[in-house]
Amino acid sequence: MPERVLVVGVGFMGGSFARALKASGFKGRVYGYDVNPENLKKALELGLLDEGTVKIEEVKKFEPDLVMLSSPVRTFVPLAERLAPLLPAESTVTDQGSVKGKLVYELERILGERFVGGHPIAGTEKSGPEHSLAELYRGKKVVLTPTERTDYRRLEEVKRLWERLGAKVELMSPELHDFVFGAVSHLPHAVAFALVDALISLSDEVDLFRYPGAGFKDFTRIAKSDPVMWRDIFITNRENVLKAIEAYEASLKKLKELIKEGKLEELTEYLKKVKLKRTEMEKWSG
Amino acid sequence: MPERVLVVGVGFMGGSFARALKASGFKGRVYGYDVNPENLKKALELGLLDEGTVKIEEVKKFEPDLVMLSSPVRTFVPLAERLAPLLPAESTVTDQGSVKGKLVYELERILGERFVGGHPIAGTEKSGPEHSLAELYRGKKVVLTPTERTDYRRLEEVKRLWERLGAKVELMSPELHDFVFGAVSHLPHAVAFALVDALISLSDEVDLFRYPGAGFKDFTRIAKSDPVMWRDIFITNRENVLKAIEAYEASLKKLKELIKEGKLEELTEYLKKVKLKRTEMEKWSG
Repeated sequence: MPERVLVVGVGFMGGSFARALKASGFKGRVYGYDVNPENLKKALELGLLDEGTVKIEEVKKFEPDLVMLSSPVRTFVPLAERLAPLLPAESTVTDQGSVKGKLVYELERILGERFVGGHPIAGTEKSGPEHSLAELYRGKKVVLTPTERTDYRRLEEVKRLWERLGAKVELMSPELHDFVFGAVSHLPHAVAFALVDALISLSDEVDLFRYPGAGFKDFTRIAKSDPVMWRDIFITNRENVLKAIEAYEASLKKLKELIKEGKLEELTEYLKKVKLKRTEMEKWSG
Repeated sequence: MPERVLVVGVGFMGGSFARALKASGFKGRVYGYDVNPENLKKALELGLLDEGTVKIEEVKKFEPDLVMLSSPVRTFVPLAERLAPLLPAESTVTDQGSVKGKLVYELERILGERFVGGHPIAGTEKSGPEHSLAELYRGKKVVLTPTERTDYRRLEEVKRLWERLGAKVELMSPELHDFVFGAVSHLPHAVAFALVDALISLSDEVDLFRYPGAGFKDFTRIAKSDPVMWRDIFITNRENVLKAIEAYEASLKKLKELIKEGKLEELTEYLKKVKLKRTEMEKWSG
């Protein structure tokens, strides 16, 4: 187990990691670095951190043996470049980013074998350390994305750390990770954002948002997620997201044609297949 | 208040109406008619009905003063044709159907001034009387869709009945109703069905359904809804559903282009506008 952990970015995810770590009975020190003094102040007041700084040079004195990158993905490369000379050679750097792919190779180029890519499949549409949850990772999957260059001792260390927080670790290549989450996470967000946009465009005559049926509310809850974070995810995983949107457009077009042409039997088959698959899925949700 | 209520179709919606009525302290009799003897048996065993039949001619002897159509919308016209000669001239017939529009005028043609169109904005993806809920309508909207032909005494009677079950009644023309629910309910269902279909088509390499993130699960819960019911809704409200799908396709295309072209500023604006609107919406959800 690490003894001096540095959380980089103490928003909702960084805060939750710190909180979960403390709740797990971790006896070491938890340090925080954030460009936002407000986040840092709140995280210190909440007792999530033992010490924190807004000055990146100061992380040197913390001598962390584990660094958890928890800031938005777009900041990882510039941050890694500044952190690399400040971190001990034997330290481990991992992350909570939703995008892996090329980013993992770039971070390996900068941080060397210190880096192990990770992505906890957990989160809410909330932000800020004040909403962070000690139980965020319990029973959830964490995907680690080793490459040919990965140090297996460090991979094992990161795996054990997540297991200690109640998560189930699964390994996947960075490329497969981005394809999978482009489809199961980034695509649903794109679809939900577009749904709200469509209802705005249809609201000329009557304010459609006054009629939130139960399904619609659940369905578009994720459209309240942080816009800048999602812009970055879409741009960083652009290739997979576009592929997934195109597959989705084809599925929607098929459904539209069946409705337009009144093909009752094929329409029923389409909806039955979908219901069956979605119902089967329940068995995977822990 | 009515004294002899007939529920036509005792599945989830019919069962919930009967259950809510009994729970409201209703002292009259609740009768049920269903083509499915299983549903009827369960509803009788659960104490939702005082008496029931699978033979439509037998509803004559019940002499209901209020009839609640709760079967799938496609059955309304043939049922109304068979019920019309069996029901007292002074009775009121209303319904829980998700589609109104032309259907309302057709039912008026068959049932005359006895008919008042209604649609409770409540439901789950479940079916069957065993899942029915006494509190289903509490705090929910019920839309009634009067026309030039509507008898305002009956409209008032139906309104009071729903209010007794805890619902808030709102009036809307049948046409506006179908436009609104084509957009806020039927479109989100189409979008969710297509999302599951897209993930099936993308699952060649890896079973994407093994990675249900929190958002994805909420998001596609409605894809478990009854396929035949949704086929009928899509077909019955075809014109509005197609218009809504087309507006949606345009919104998704716009989002896709912004991602493809890497237009950071416009992409952020798109996502911010959507988040703002979705957050504002909270104030309408009772």
